[in-house]
Amino acid sequence: MNETQTVRLGVLGCGTVGTSFCQLIQERADEIARRTGLSLEIGKVAVRDMSKTREGVDPSLLSDDAEALVNDPSIDIVVETMGGVDHTKDLVLAAFAAGKPVVTANKELLALHMPELFAAANDAGIDLDLEASVAAGLPFIRALRQSLVGENISRVMGILNGTTNYMLTKMTEEGADYAEVLAEAQRLGFAEADPTADVGGFDAGSKAAIIATLAFGEAVRAGDVHIEGIEGVTSADISNAQRLGYVIKLLGIVEKNADGSIAARVHPSMVPSDHPLASVRDSFNAVFVEGSGIDQVMFYGRGAGGHPTAAMMVGDAVNAAINLRSGYHSKLGDLPPANIRSIDDIKSAFYLSVDALDQPGVLAEIASVFGERGVSIGSMEQENADDGSARLVFITHVAVERNLRDVLDDLEGLDTVKNVGQVMRVVAD
Amino acid sequence: MNETQTVRLGVLGCGTVGTSFCQLIQERADEIARRTGLSLEIGKVAVRDMSKTREGVDPSLLSDDAEALVNDPSIDIVVETMGGVDHTKDLVLAAFAAGKPVVTANKELLALHMPELFAAANDAGIDLDLEASVAAGLPFIRALRQSLVGENISRVMGILNGTTNYMLTKMTEEGADYAEVLAEAQRLGFAEADPTADVGGFDAGSKAAIIATLAFGEAVRAGDVHIEGIEGVTSADISNAQRLGYVIKLLGIVEKNADGSIAARVHPSMVPSDHPLASVRDSFNAVFVEGSGIDQVMFYGRGAGGHPTAAMMVGDAVNAAINLRSGYHSKLGDLPPANIRSIDDIKSAFYLSVDALDQPGVLAEIASVFGERGVSIGSMEQENADDGSARLVFITHVAVERNLRDVLDDLEGLDTVKNVGQVMRVVAD
Repeated sequence: MNETQTVRLGVLGCGTVGTSFCQLIQERADEIARRTGLSLEIGKVAVRDMSKTREGVDPSLLSDDAEALVNDPSIDIVVETMGGVDHTKDLVLAAFAAGKPVVTANKELLALHMPELFAAANDAGIDLDLEASVAAGLPFIRALRQSLVGENISRVMGILNGTTNYMLTKMTEEGADYAEVLAEAQRLGFAEADPTADVGGFDAGSKAAIIATLAFGEAVRAGDVHIEGIEGVTSADISNAQRLGYVIKLLGIVEKNADGSIAARVHPSMVPSDHPLASVRDSFNAVFVEGSGIDQVMFYGRGAGGHPTAAMMVGDAVNAAINLRSGYHSKLGDLPPANIRSIDDIKSAFYLSVDALDQPGVLAEIASVFGERGVSIGSMEQENADDGSARLVFITHVAVERNLRDVLDDLEGLDTVKNVGQVMRVVAD
Repeated sequence: MNETQTVRLGVLGCGTVGTSFCQLIQERADEIARRTGLSLEIGKVAVRDMSKTREGVDPSLLSDDAEALVNDPSIDIVVETMGGVDHTKDLVLAAFAAGKPVVTANKELLALHMPELFAAANDAGIDLDLEASVAAGLPFIRALRQSLVGENISRVMGILNGTTNYMLTKMTEEGADYAEVLAEAQRLGFAEADPTADVGGFDAGSKAAIIATLAFGEAVRAGDVHIEGIEGVTSADISNAQRLGYVIKLLGIVEKNADGSIAARVHPSMVPSDHPLASVRDSFNAVFVEGSGIDQVMFYGRGAGGHPTAAMMVGDAVNAAINLRSGYHSKLGDLPPANIRSIDDIKSAFYLSVDALDQPGVLAEIASVFGERGVSIGSMEQENADDGSARLVFITHVAVERNLRDVLDDLEGLDTVKNVGQVMRVVAD
């Protein structure tokens, strides 16, 4: 490999990411050749609208025939930036059938069809590279697949959605309420007119499925992830959390349990304010990995945007080109279906607030409910509620979700308890 | 590559890291085979003291002849965990000459001899892998070399030494003074009896040289790095910084300037408290990378320790094994000597405090000194010093170090200035 070999890239789609990708490949071509001995070129770009001009993209490379591109023998690698699921899946499979590795950032596609796509890539003996599919600008997927291959990963927690992290940061730092920050995020273009995918946790859920599959080597799909969004988070919750030394974040959490089962969930979580995830502000993303050898590793960066996404896809294209020329490909193994642990059985610490009569013996009565259900209390604070009743704020030790729900039911049944307020899961070691 | 091929590893040294490495290779062998089709085995372990027992290491593999190990035809890859520079360098070069890739975490060796070692690896067409040499438990070197190959990196800032970060964290959070925390760190085994390598910034300096070489593709050696330690940091500095919204960290900073020159330095720095580096506590390390495409990326984790180091070296060994079998190797290119920018010419924001006579016109006089030297003032606070004089605390905009020194000289010469106190570089965008 001492002479420079040319590798020709076929790009599907030429929106923000596709355009940035084409520009970056040209800008970095010399440096890439210096480090790899490979000359990467844009061979063809398939677009829907041939009449649009795209800065830095040679119009003579444009084609409106995506099928022809993936089957074109002069194209070595397919770079998918078009989005969508069904048609895109067909194109990706066609590329594999034609012996072409695929680079993609398409999280919806992967969260639904990753096992079949990896199986097809594996059968063809070529690569499927997906660095930019989750937390686009953080180079952590190659780290999970390569650098951490020697690591037994127990848990990954991520701030995986920039829109909701931006909103929660505003609520935390400016005391703004949910509706206000949502409207602002929509005005600034950070949130869609229909914000459900973001605020409902579904976008983060797709990403959590991909992370779990990569971290544990078993197939976890979007539908396996328990999802709660941030719609119910109030500015009062946030200030309560702050007072107790926590920040509220929407986390995707995937865990491998001792029994081999996998839990995958997305929900608002109270993160201790000295935890590295607590300092991830605005629209930044982060992925926090825990394992027996490495202890804790965190990756932090831009979760979206044309430039960061394209930069990571260039890294993938270089990797795919190297492997294509040397005849190696990165495998994930078989990806058997994961044994998914139900949300009822997951373990977490919990925050809950209880309004009770302010009279002797009440705390003992409430505490005994926790004890009977096997839920251990980590800390308790008492304050006076507006109506003269006592507000008791508890943070439990790690407990089984089902048992915590039983505690809530039992508390609702006590005459001395007037109201069981907000309950939120708390990040614990 | 559908059948499992065996790759035999020869390990030099079997202390904490070497022992962990051998254990981890055995624990993860099945998973590695599943993902790569390669069966990694410990073939031989060279040690100085053959009589010591090492848990999890088969005594029949031990040898006291390191030269024989690197030349043994049954060994495919050499894993260097013995440390040291001159003799170790000879062994690494002998391994390359025998066609064996080398995995190492030896920062001293690399900071002194990286260009020659990479040139020898390149001539042999094999890999030199060094993930664990800097910030051992953070998988960022492969990211720099592969995922970020599409990225034009402008600056890397790192918390690269766990001992000093532990000490500064204690000083910040407990108000302890330098001598106190150093003694405690020594008692706990975090700091050596002679702590110079850590507190003097030399350990971080070696790591900064390696990072600069990898990030910019030019040879930066330990001696090219401007180094200042934390010995002069007082608890007063720390509390002043906190009051202004900063945390003091020992940072290694490497920058590529517009003129192509490279600045590499290690010194205590004031980091804005909402910057991700500010939340890196205790003995954790972090590497913060800035570039045109990715904007900002941070890697966070354990900087040292047998397990994290060994986990990263397993990832390297797997990578080296894959490349060895497929005939590819990761290049760095030629590594021409960097054009190093002198510390006098580097640009930074600065903090400085000035005790001046508390009388009309003094501030204007002082401000005009900054203006004449081309240093722009970002913010100023005035407080009363104990002796009734006024203490003026300035944070400048980004300025050239030489010009800031001229300001200090000029201020010393003013009759109205009684004392120019602590000066510290401030992290700015």
